[in-house]
Amino acid sequence: MQNSTENDHFDLWFEERLQNITATKFKVKRTLFSEKSPFQQVDVVETEGHGNMLLNDGIIMTCDRDEFVYHEMIAHPALFSHPNPKQVLIIGGGDGGTLREVLKHPSVESCDMVEIDEAVVRASKQYLPEIAIAMDSDRANVIIDDGIEFIKNTTKAYDVILIDSTDPIGPATPLFNEAFYQDVYDKLSNNGIVVAQMESPYYQLNFQKAMFNRFKPIFPKRFLMNYTNMTYIGALWSFAYLSKEIHPINAFDSQRVSTLNLSLKYYNQGIHKACFALPQFMKDELKDLIDND
Amino acid sequence: MQNSTENDHFDLWFEERLQNITATKFKVKRTLFSEKSPFQQVDVVETEGHGNMLLNDGIIMTCDRDEFVYHEMIAHPALFSHPNPKQVLIIGGGDGGTLREVLKHPSVESCDMVEIDEAVVRASKQYLPEIAIAMDSDRANVIIDDGIEFIKNTTKAYDVILIDSTDPIGPATPLFNEAFYQDVYDKLSNNGIVVAQMESPYYQLNFQKAMFNRFKPIFPKRFLMNYTNMTYIGALWSFAYLSKEIHPINAFDSQRVSTLNLSLKYYNQGIHKACFALPQFMKDELKDLIDND
Repeated sequence: MQNSTENDHFDLWFEERLQNITATKFKVKRTLFSEKSPFQQVDVVETEGHGNMLLNDGIIMTCDRDEFVYHEMIAHPALFSHPNPKQVLIIGGGDGGTLREVLKHPSVESCDMVEIDEAVVRASKQYLPEIAIAMDSDRANVIIDDGIEFIKNTTKAYDVILIDSTDPIGPATPLFNEAFYQDVYDKLSNNGIVVAQMESPYYQLNFQKAMFNRFKPIFPKRFLMNYTNMTYIGALWSFAYLSKEIHPINAFDSQRVSTLNLSLKYYNQGIHKACFALPQFMKDELKDLIDND
Repeated sequence: MQNSTENDHFDLWFEERLQNITATKFKVKRTLFSEKSPFQQVDVVETEGHGNMLLNDGIIMTCDRDEFVYHEMIAHPALFSHPNPKQVLIIGGGDGGTLREVLKHPSVESCDMVEIDEAVVRASKQYLPEIAIAMDSDRANVIIDDGIEFIKNTTKAYDVILIDSTDPIGPATPLFNEAFYQDVYDKLSNNGIVVAQMESPYYQLNFQKAMFNRFKPIFPKRFLMNYTNMTYIGALWSFAYLSKEIHPINAFDSQRVSTLNLSLKYYNQGIHKACFALPQFMKDELKDLIDND
């Protein structure tokens, strides 16, 4: 295995399986970081075609090549729907990519990022520097803490809260509970918006349905929005958009997107509206739970 | 390998690789059909979680579980953009799924489907009967012939032509040539619309760019539209929408979608508009070649 990257016979692949019926694979050059933290196994591998890739418990979190998709889409639809987002909270998001996108908005005065696992932050700063780049910003406040406890105890009110979590297994499990979302709701400002990672509608539609049944008694307005990146197994993925009152399409000021001109790679005015247009099977299954047109 | 499906130790997977940097895998129960035709290797496998799956030269063409996505999206945006589609031509599409969607439109008087490989038609009729179901319709005309020759020689004018091809390798290669598209243009009626399979923007953006450079001197209006199914490697996929004059959004009569009420699973009025909203990286790369907003 010495000089492995120069050896044509060395054919190393990372594989992620889903429901033991499908899998995705990425060709790997070498492992850069591998540590069992108190919360999970954290690895960074250098891939052949996708740059460096962060894996938590063997699940792809992000990678250099397509991280812009997830990070732009968790942040900008909410930040461009809110008329003037100043205080933002990220729960999870330890790689820093969501924070980086949030801080592109000049209206944001402060962004708290609460990540439970310092190993994720450390690995990302070292091996995903373009993603982690904003963690040293004056407007960023990186807190290593349990998001569940943080949200209970904070006395701040947030305009936008982004739940940038892993899958509902392992350390992120409590981030999918009703009690957590009630606490999140209670810490929103009047115009507050929540966006939360919501898995794949193709493979986890029942999970999405269960989550929106939890959201329904808490959040007056509830939407799903879709995106597609290169690396998440299941191809079509969703975020929940939950708000006290702001409708993501009716309240959207597309002119602000032009004016701010953030030089993004995925999100734009058209995508803002299009991501809320759901395939019919989603509308049929979730029809009493969501406010998408 | 006897009684393999009852053996817990039997772990058979099909794998499709792309650019030798990524791969997708699907768990397989058994092979149902395997034949080397004059054009390609044709296989149908029964999968564990995705129903029966058709493979041409080891590339996933379609499968029971998600075929609705591709087949609805190659057909309905064009058929609902055209004010009154009567004569439709499908080049390729040997599994019959595109034909099935086309014939859902009562305005369609006749749909010619020109598939080069009768083995694909035969395998699909036997092992993908729900996809192939419309091939026996009175309005369907299934022709086993080379699409290149057919389009040169036909004396008909078509309202909609759908290029339902495999990847630009193997028997489908000539279907990506400029000469073929000139012939296609020449056989369009005045309001004619063409939709063609256009690969993945994440992995084949340069291919898309090369194709639209070929389309530009031929078709006055040129658009890309995106969709995401479960099984195509690369996650985000595109069709080209090419027309003499009909703009797919401005000319769209969303009321007709409600009135016809086709009971679809992916396409709807919102998706019609949303599929033409492209991620920014596509707009930047293709900006002088496409008419998407």
